[in-house]
Amino acid sequence: MKTDIQIAQEAVMQPITEVAERAGIAAEDLELYGKYKAKLSDGFWEKVKDNEDGKLVLVTAINPTPAGEGKTTTTIGLGQAMAKLGKNAVIALREPSLGPCFGIKGGAAGGGYAQVVPMEDLNLHFTGDFHAITSANNLLAAMLDNHIQQGNALQIDPRQVVWKRCLDMNDRVLRNIVVGLGNKMDGMVREDHFVITVASEIMAVLCLADDLQDLKKRLGRIIVAYNFAGEPVTADQLEATGAMTALLKDAIKPNLIQTLEHTPALVHGGPFANIAHGCNSVRATKTALKMSDITITEAGFGADLGAEKFLDIKCRKAGLKPDAVVLVATVRALKYNGGVLKADLGTENLDALKKGIVNLEKHIENIQKYGVPVVVTLNSFVTDTEAENQFIRRFCEEKGCEFALSEVWEKGGEGGIALAEKVLETLETKKSSFHTLYEDSLSLKEKIETISREIYGAGKVVYEPAAEKQLARIEALGFGEFPVCMAKNQYSLSDDASRLGRPENFDIHIREVYVSAGAGFVVALTGAIMTMPGLPKVPAANQIDVSADGKITGLF
Amino acid sequence: MKTDIQIAQEAVMQPITEVAERAGIAAEDLELYGKYKAKLSDGFWEKVKDNEDGKLVLVTAINPTPAGEGKTTTTIGLGQAMAKLGKNAVIALREPSLGPCFGIKGGAAGGGYAQVVPMEDLNLHFTGDFHAITSANNLLAAMLDNHIQQGNALQIDPRQVVWKRCLDMNDRVLRNIVVGLGNKMDGMVREDHFVITVASEIMAVLCLADDLQDLKKRLGRIIVAYNFAGEPVTADQLEATGAMTALLKDAIKPNLIQTLEHTPALVHGGPFANIAHGCNSVRATKTALKMSDITITEAGFGADLGAEKFLDIKCRKAGLKPDAVVLVATVRALKYNGGVLKADLGTENLDALKKGIVNLEKHIENIQKYGVPVVVTLNSFVTDTEAENQFIRRFCEEKGCEFALSEVWEKGGEGGIALAEKVLETLETKKSSFHTLYEDSLSLKEKIETISREIYGAGKVVYEPAAEKQLARIEALGFGEFPVCMAKNQYSLSDDASRLGRPENFDIHIREVYVSAGAGFVVALTGAIMTMPGLPKVPAANQIDVSADGKITGLF
Repeated sequence: MKTDIQIAQEAVMQPITEVAERAGIAAEDLELYGKYKAKLSDGFWEKVKDNEDGKLVLVTAINPTPAGEGKTTTTIGLGQAMAKLGKNAVIALREPSLGPCFGIKGGAAGGGYAQVVPMEDLNLHFTGDFHAITSANNLLAAMLDNHIQQGNALQIDPRQVVWKRCLDMNDRVLRNIVVGLGNKMDGMVREDHFVITVASEIMAVLCLADDLQDLKKRLGRIIVAYNFAGEPVTADQLEATGAMTALLKDAIKPNLIQTLEHTPALVHGGPFANIAHGCNSVRATKTALKMSDITITEAGFGADLGAEKFLDIKCRKAGLKPDAVVLVATVRALKYNGGVLKADLGTENLDALKKGIVNLEKHIENIQKYGVPVVVTLNSFVTDTEAENQFIRRFCEEKGCEFALSEVWEKGGEGGIALAEKVLETLETKKSSFHTLYEDSLSLKEKIETISREIYGAGKVVYEPAAEKQLARIEALGFGEFPVCMAKNQYSLSDDASRLGRPENFDIHIREVYVSAGAGFVVALTGAIMTMPGLPKVPAANQIDVSADGKITGLF
Repeated sequence: MKTDIQIAQEAVMQPITEVAERAGIAAEDLELYGKYKAKLSDGFWEKVKDNEDGKLVLVTAINPTPAGEGKTTTTIGLGQAMAKLGKNAVIALREPSLGPCFGIKGGAAGGGYAQVVPMEDLNLHFTGDFHAITSANNLLAAMLDNHIQQGNALQIDPRQVVWKRCLDMNDRVLRNIVVGLGNKMDGMVREDHFVITVASEIMAVLCLADDLQDLKKRLGRIIVAYNFAGEPVTADQLEATGAMTALLKDAIKPNLIQTLEHTPALVHGGPFANIAHGCNSVRATKTALKMSDITITEAGFGADLGAEKFLDIKCRKAGLKPDAVVLVATVRALKYNGGVLKADLGTENLDALKKGIVNLEKHIENIQKYGVPVVVTLNSFVTDTEAENQFIRRFCEEKGCEFALSEVWEKGGEGGIALAEKVLETLETKKSSFHTLYEDSLSLKEKIETISREIYGAGKVVYEPAAEKQLARIEALGFGEFPVCMAKNQYSLSDDASRLGRPENFDIHIREVYVSAGAGFVVALTGAIMTMPGLPKVPAANQIDVSADGKITGLF
């Protein structure tokens, strides 16, 4: 069987200028990065901004399991299938991070015959967006420490610096560090931390900004520290905003690449789906809507994290209205949720399926709370049986949502025709009455409790004393109107990763709360969230190589 | 008077495809990065590699002073002037670093009417080469610490880790840090250091590598640490080489941009000129030689550092033979060397000039030791007087070298015609009998002493005990055949920055010696060399901004 990279490297790509031309983008509106990647110029947005929006379809999934769900693969395959059906479809995806690529996860460009290409470029530096974010993040950090060093006119309290440095790398020893050792000229000693670039607030800011001027305003509002009087100190006060904006002037432009079947894909931005909102940029999604009849996009992790934030943060902030949600599941993942060990997932087990399908059930109910029609799709594996598929199909129909099998991994767009037809039928026959889950005017606690109760199925929310204080401070600072970005493990609907299926009446524990004033949301952390991953015992990097003819091997 | 960025932004650039076409580069051999930047594909090298080499001209300077010399400006202006004279000239330059751009120095794209453009892109992310180097550097660091964390099979001594992390940022608090704090899963605690990306050995490796496979070999040889038995541990042993090479697969391709007058410029790589060799990539220089009749390149700092390393390291390693050297001086800088304060440099002062010209004299003599003809050029300032110019002209002629005034800052290529004509005359009439200063077979100490005596004019070399031990260890490890890369302050020919002019009979103090096994040289440090700069009290970044119409302002 061919690996993803083999399939990707064997693909005959079209010059991106041709892909663009078919999508109605003139050569003058492309900023090429090699032959197969391009950024869309600001001029293109000016040309299309008054077009009517196409339909917006979100692809999300049940809670992730070690069995794999294939959400990105489904998103890409669905786009390819739409194109096969003659539809003008554009895919909007997140950019992958370098860190996981060298760690355990490998790349993130879809899989099998549903991939975006050039896969190696996408997984390595791509068009440099993440490097620009890293630079802007670390310029702000350097200017902060330089301000302290050069007299500290703003009276920044070194114990209350909240801005962290970042690298797009899995590097655990940088989680907790002490900086400024040496002599007087080497800076003030303080504890510091690195996060991975996708966890930088600048990533979230870039992905929520409407344009460069909005980006600049948001950057300026970022809170980097508190002063000795407890008041916030911002990037604007450090006079860092202009230079950071200059560093990001190209990064904010959406990137255009293609699928294996030459469907246009805007791949742009990639914030964490726990401490941030986990969706590609607003700019890319809005551009896709103006370019296409149907925009297919995805959100990180399962629907409890990714879709909830897509709907309650991204759609709220950007004024987007999704027309349908595709919910991806696999027979294997549902059996895993029903208590089957990973090694036994290849055996038919209707009892386990019945037990595990409650996870899917909860996600269906959740999406329906937003007033958006749901299509469930099963990403097929060879071991799935007809009886298992039928059971799930019936279950979905009883829940009032459409169902379709998807074989896009194996067959590309052809394998997604059934799904695409169901989605089209849904778009034509079922009207979305999208609304967010909660109003801006609720208190932060009410927002946290609404998400916990309605989406997670929790009984009550327990706040640690520190979190109580932080909530009061954030509301006192005037950020009470912000939506809440919940940072929770992705594996369970609860904040305990081991509770699979559909847990009920559990407590949600809010450990820490802080404001991302530039992004425009309040982050509530349940338990410890890792913002700087480590490498495994045998990193994926060990296998990556470049052959004598310049081809990259070992990238997954 | 217009600022550099105003002049650059008012320039009407040609599409880089047109610049390339005139330089004989087909569109298929370009990898475009927007409309005005491109990388040259490996295919282009295959097409031109059997061409005869053009002439190679190095531009270097006297010791830098606060008065400024304008070496890059002269290099660019000379290229523009050659083109005006109908010559097929290509310029080969280093890429600027982001750190100084936000610090005190501003950009590095030439000045006035002798600039390469797009200036903002060049000074910000350009084509991402430095980001790729940062990533490769930090991947190696992460894999090293991960190896220690995961059982340390190679028995790496955490006290003898020599590999440092890097960022392309002026950030003093990262000079000396402690990493790995926290819990067991957060890594092993050890002292660590960040350097600026241009000081990473990977930068030197990239700039000395012939091609991707040579790069890979060199990366694998990099020594990252010593084990508890005192033996070196390499990148190969950490199985990091392939992934690092993959990260650098595009970075090794030369970048093509243009001057304000559309002369082609290959701008590629930019290692420090103290702990590394301070020249653009071998790949770019060799490509330029194959493309042009005359290649004009430059080396960092003054001739004692930059030219010495260009000649003794880059030319030796790459088999290059320079045909002429242009030595840049200014009346102001020579008067500064003669003891005049910066504020008084605008007044005619022949006595000070006579006193300070010994600095120029020494550099002329030094270049002549390599058997290469010298052309001295004065980069004109409005305050220079005719008497001062004449004095310098006569002085140069007495020293057996050509002389020409240059007014390229003010007049672009037109202002460099006189210089270009002198250079052409030199290339036609004076044969270069280039040879390196010393043979590979000398001991490391003999090499250090040869450079110190012959180039710096030192009396004797004093080794600190640690340096003595390090020299013995490096020779025992088999690296005695490497050339020596001297790390010395750039302001004086001696290792005391305050000794201007032409100091004599001084001691050179060798404080520390280490091997850059991937780059292929041994670094000898005289005094403390800063490898991570800090930001000044008012960083240049404070002034950088993006206007409402998307234009970058305040970048110098």
